[in-house]
Amino acid sequence: MKFVLGVDAGGTSTRALAVAADGTVLGAGRAGGANPNSHPPAEAAANLAAAIRAATGVPGRASACVIGMAGTAKLTDPAVAALFERTWSDLGLDRVVVLTDAEVAFAAATDAPDGTVLIAGTGSIAGRIRKRRMVATEGGYGWLLGDEGSGFWLGREAVRATLAALGRDGDLGPLATAVLAEAGVDATDRKYAWRRLITVANAEPPVRLARFAPLVAVDDPAAADIVERAADLLVATALATREPGEDTPVVLVGSVLGDGTRVGERVRAKLAGLEVRTSSDGVLGAAWLAAVEAFGEAAARRPG
Amino acid sequence: MKFVLGVDAGGTSTRALAVAADGTVLGAGRAGGANPNSHPPAEAAANLAAAIRAATGVPGRASACVIGMAGTAKLTDPAVAALFERTWSDLGLDRVVVLTDAEVAFAAATDAPDGTVLIAGTGSIAGRIRKRRMVATEGGYGWLLGDEGSGFWLGREAVRATLAALGRDGDLGPLATAVLAEAGVDATDRKYAWRRLITVANAEPPVRLARFAPLVAVDDPAAADIVERAADLLVATALATREPGEDTPVVLVGSVLGDGTRVGERVRAKLAGLEVRTSSDGVLGAAWLAAVEAFGEAAARRPG
Repeated sequence: MKFVLGVDAGGTSTRALAVAADGTVLGAGRAGGANPNSHPPAEAAANLAAAIRAATGVPGRASACVIGMAGTAKLTDPAVAALFERTWSDLGLDRVVVLTDAEVAFAAATDAPDGTVLIAGTGSIAGRIRKRRMVATEGGYGWLLGDEGSGFWLGREAVRATLAALGRDGDLGPLATAVLAEAGVDATDRKYAWRRLITVANAEPPVRLARFAPLVAVDDPAAADIVERAADLLVATALATREPGEDTPVVLVGSVLGDGTRVGERVRAKLAGLEVRTSSDGVLGAAWLAAVEAFGEAAARRPG
Repeated sequence: MKFVLGVDAGGTSTRALAVAADGTVLGAGRAGGANPNSHPPAEAAANLAAAIRAATGVPGRASACVIGMAGTAKLTDPAVAALFERTWSDLGLDRVVVLTDAEVAFAAATDAPDGTVLIAGTGSIAGRIRKRRMVATEGGYGWLLGDEGSGFWLGREAVRATLAALGRDGDLGPLATAVLAEAGVDATDRKYAWRRLITVANAEPPVRLARFAPLVAVDDPAAADIVERAADLLVATALATREPGEDTPVVLVGSVLGDGTRVGERVRAKLAGLEVRTSSDGVLGAAWLAAVEAFGEAAARRPG
């Protein structure tokens, strides 16, 4: 029986799906993270192999394998590239395509070959997609230099708004109250709370500020202002990758832009008039792209 | 002979000045940093004592001693406070006043008891001064949460502007060229340079982004835009500490706001109509405040 492999290699886990030509899911595998930026390359490669083997006993029989991976830039290192080549070879795979996580996320949401992918999780980036490949990006500088509208950014703005509230007279609103509770800071003495919140925020790795991001969902004008600015920044980032008059879909990816999130809601409102889709699962996009690779676009079936 | 002691306890060095009642400088001392936030408190106290002893053989005879110090919040720790009390006692000093670096910087620039101090070095903060004491602040959140318009902020914006330039077609301007040279990144391959600049910026402690700050002085519209935004943010921070119609001096402090700096120039232009002064040397303010403490305001003479 002909089948293909789709893999989503994330920072914390890797998932693999074996899918028959008619779309039937034959097996699923899971292993630890396989992002070669955040894991030693040998560990990333081993986790990839483990997830693929768990999805099918005989990976080498797959007609094609598409892997979506954050941190593909690392593969430009010849030693890392050679290590991954050996991994495919050991699995018996002779047709492996490594794509970015953004590319498989785009393919998971739409059959369209061209469009825009907008990602906002802990970080943020937008990509111009042409023929299902990302040909240009906007943003993606990382937390220190950018990531506007991301979970890191939302959390930082929530803490900043709380510091400003502590410096003013009057009652603390729901956002400030929620931030202080999350940080474990008592607000009885405001000067103390101000200093303590800065200390707490600086005591952990900076990206951990993203833990305050979900708090912007509280009903508070200060929170609504942060959500609005995040949505404006993310929409501007996405639109910067599009050509004048471009009429392709925009695919939203990541925890900040999920259905039901405040920021996602505002981004969808601001993009009204465009086709906007939500990508839920990159591994489904990888499996479909593998089917397109193996059987051609007309014959390829999505998993399910 | 009656004399007073003024001390400026900074992060990298501590300076002490012994000044006679008529303003004659009797002696000067210097030692390592004495900020109890960035040094172990025992080391900070020892450096303070060394600088004071070097300024005068008999510190105990001083009529008053004023110390300007960043990180005074640390002195709310009873153990640290006790350590510093012992240090004064060992020196024979019975009249010691510890103030913030902002307070001595304000006093260095003006006789006025009330006003605004605006500091922009690696970080940024503004303070409302009443009777020569800082009674409220604006900003001062530190690099992770704020420091708008500071050296850190300017450096980060310079790097961001360079990343944006690398992502566009066309020649790189003077700012981007200077940033890439400072970072040691070759721009022949722009995609590589983009990734490499992000890597270099993240390879050092974040505040080291301040090393790119001086580059905004180049003649380039991108640099001018950063300077203008920094000046707007700093002016807004300063004005937020002032009461409606307040007609007191604004004292500018720090490397970003020095005479002849681009940001300082734009801040002075935006504050036209107010009395704006530049504080050059906190130790002179500390010595004068010590004289005010010892001899009263009418009799106090500034060093010189």
